[in-house]
Amino acid sequence: MATSHATRSRVRGQRGALAELGNWLAELLPPPRKVAIVTDRNVAPFCLKAAESALKKAGFATHALLIPPGEASKSLKILGNVWDRVLTAGAERGSVVVALGGGVVGDLAGLAAATLLRGLPFVQVPTSLVGQVDSAIGGKNGVNRPTGKNLVGTFHPPALVVIDPDLLATLPEREYRSGLAEVIKYGFLKAPELLDQLRAIGDYEALRSRPEVVDAIVTRCALIKAEIVERDLTESGERLLLNFGHTTGHAIEAADSFQSLLHGEAVGVGMIAAAFLGVDLGASDATLPAEVSELLERYGLPVATRFAPEELLPFVGRDKKKKAGKSRWIVVQRAGSACVVEDPPSESVLRAMQAVHQREEPSDSSPLRGERV
Amino acid sequence: MATSHATRSRVRGQRGALAELGNWLAELLPPPRKVAIVTDRNVAPFCLKAAESALKKAGFATHALLIPPGEASKSLKILGNVWDRVLTAGAERGSVVVALGGGVVGDLAGLAAATLLRGLPFVQVPTSLVGQVDSAIGGKNGVNRPTGKNLVGTFHPPALVVIDPDLLATLPEREYRSGLAEVIKYGFLKAPELLDQLRAIGDYEALRSRPEVVDAIVTRCALIKAEIVERDLTESGERLLLNFGHTTGHAIEAADSFQSLLHGEAVGVGMIAAAFLGVDLGASDATLPAEVSELLERYGLPVATRFAPEELLPFVGRDKKKKAGKSRWIVVQRAGSACVVEDPPSESVLRAMQAVHQREEPSDSSPLRGERV
Repeated sequence: MATSHATRSRVRGQRGALAELGNWLAELLPPPRKVAIVTDRNVAPFCLKAAESALKKAGFATHALLIPPGEASKSLKILGNVWDRVLTAGAERGSVVVALGGGVVGDLAGLAAATLLRGLPFVQVPTSLVGQVDSAIGGKNGVNRPTGKNLVGTFHPPALVVIDPDLLATLPEREYRSGLAEVIKYGFLKAPELLDQLRAIGDYEALRSRPEVVDAIVTRCALIKAEIVERDLTESGERLLLNFGHTTGHAIEAADSFQSLLHGEAVGVGMIAAAFLGVDLGASDATLPAEVSELLERYGLPVATRFAPEELLPFVGRDKKKKAGKSRWIVVQRAGSACVVEDPPSESVLRAMQAVHQREEPSDSSPLRGERV
Repeated sequence: MATSHATRSRVRGQRGALAELGNWLAELLPPPRKVAIVTDRNVAPFCLKAAESALKKAGFATHALLIPPGEASKSLKILGNVWDRVLTAGAERGSVVVALGGGVVGDLAGLAAATLLRGLPFVQVPTSLVGQVDSAIGGKNGVNRPTGKNLVGTFHPPALVVIDPDLLATLPEREYRSGLAEVIKYGFLKAPELLDQLRAIGDYEALRSRPEVVDAIVTRCALIKAEIVERDLTESGERLLLNFGHTTGHAIEAADSFQSLLHGEAVGVGMIAAAFLGVDLGASDATLPAEVSELLERYGLPVATRFAPEELLPFVGRDKKKKAGKSRWIVVQRAGSACVVEDPPSESVLRAMQAVHQREEPSDSSPLRGERV
């Protein structure tokens, strides 16, 4: 599978990769050294023992920390707990922090690694689809604040990203679908052939029954991400494009207080809103919103939000992509071509958000329609 | 005064420099942009208005945050408050965080800048002697944890360091003396002529009455620090030497729960301990401990600690300089020459700590003797 040498991260993957974790780490950071494995209670039963065993066999001393699953763990309190537990376990310069889990574990453990003893080497072992195709690659980490999502964090690229598609076997359906929203995002941004592939496969059940296709898709997305990050770690240019759907998506998550929605579910709706915005601005093909919606529906993802524009707008102003008083949006002109739009007219933003606002009576009750949120 | 172009920080200084803060910042980061000034209640009355006025005149929008003075503010709680207050004030990418104060303000504001929105540009305006000669230069920041000092933090070099010796005019005597411990540190590490100068001047009162000498000393120390940091930001080599006195010094501060001692007071005692260790190891001139003690006493700094070796040792093992299970010490052979010693024999460490342990009955009651702690 993918082997990419980004500026600072080595992305390595194959089925069964978890068993190689220790050997691959030893090539970069030779033992003996202490390794703190941060994971959560959902993930640990499936792969913690295998991770510990792979590390121990290669000569590392391991110490596992379990955090509560869910976005609520991206808090100051849990970050403080991770800091203190890693320190109490005897961490020193050169000790390694491994994130074994989904986006929440990766974001929290990454920020802990970035700040413990002024920076410990970090390894990502993503166990979710969204982690394997996106969030585990690229060095972003963060915790949430009352004012918004990921408002505190750093860029701390992992020394190593280990991608093992076998770990997806136990991923709950809803999380898997949520990860597909990011795959669809890559399709519209950079890889229209991914969209054709997803249309040809048909739906979620068909996709999940074809591991070799999943491998190829995960590889393709991980490589797209690694290449973009290699060119633009700190998101000063091209990397901004990866925020397609995230301006509205983050606002939906914040309006939801990060409670009931998965990241990909919110980002999917955000991509539709961004598509409507693009059409409204005269930048995008008129068919784009329907194309985005159709793919999301096909894979069982929400295509509307219960939050009205006036509930979302206060959070748009606090998005990290805002710069010098302006808000930033990623607009896809057509699949494979995207650009950054600075501070679009507020009436266009309003119309885009209205277009994804769930009406009282859905006009379409087709069984194919995705779950409304 | 000093103008050094380090890899990532511009260090600029002169008497009255605070009035230039806005103009100098505008050269690096042109307005309009928002500037959050982090300061404390001791410092604000003396210079906050001048800082705000200098920034506003240059076209910046300012927002001031006051934190409680003292080491206790280097906590997770106060860090969270700073995060939220800067965010609520409307910070966005490109907004600037200015630290106006001593080491505590700089360490806390620096970590906030490093982590807000994945990193905001940072400016240091040190108002303490220790800040001007040392801590404001070099990009280290941090907060304390129950297990030790500065165990959480990053390297986030300030874009600009503004050094204004006029700001030292109101510095309390005890803090000024504490800053001199770091000056003495530079003397023993890199600049024996500083020690000769301090001996020739005679004592604290004489030094403080000669601003032109203070200017020269501050310049010299700031340049030494900036040059070392330029060569070794992340403390993988030469920069380690700046931790002379800090292995025991940090242990003393931790044993004291960061309550009653100033940083320089603890580091001074730590330098004597390190000198004794050097002699014990056969690396240092036999006269070194007395030389270090004599200068510290001359400038009214403590030369012993109330903490016994057994109270300090548990904290030595948690020092950040520890690597791969070994403890690291900085040993000065003679003034101007220093090296790193990995994991010295524990009996030598014990003897060095015994040598600075305050006995029940001090053997020397000379009035020149520094305050015991």
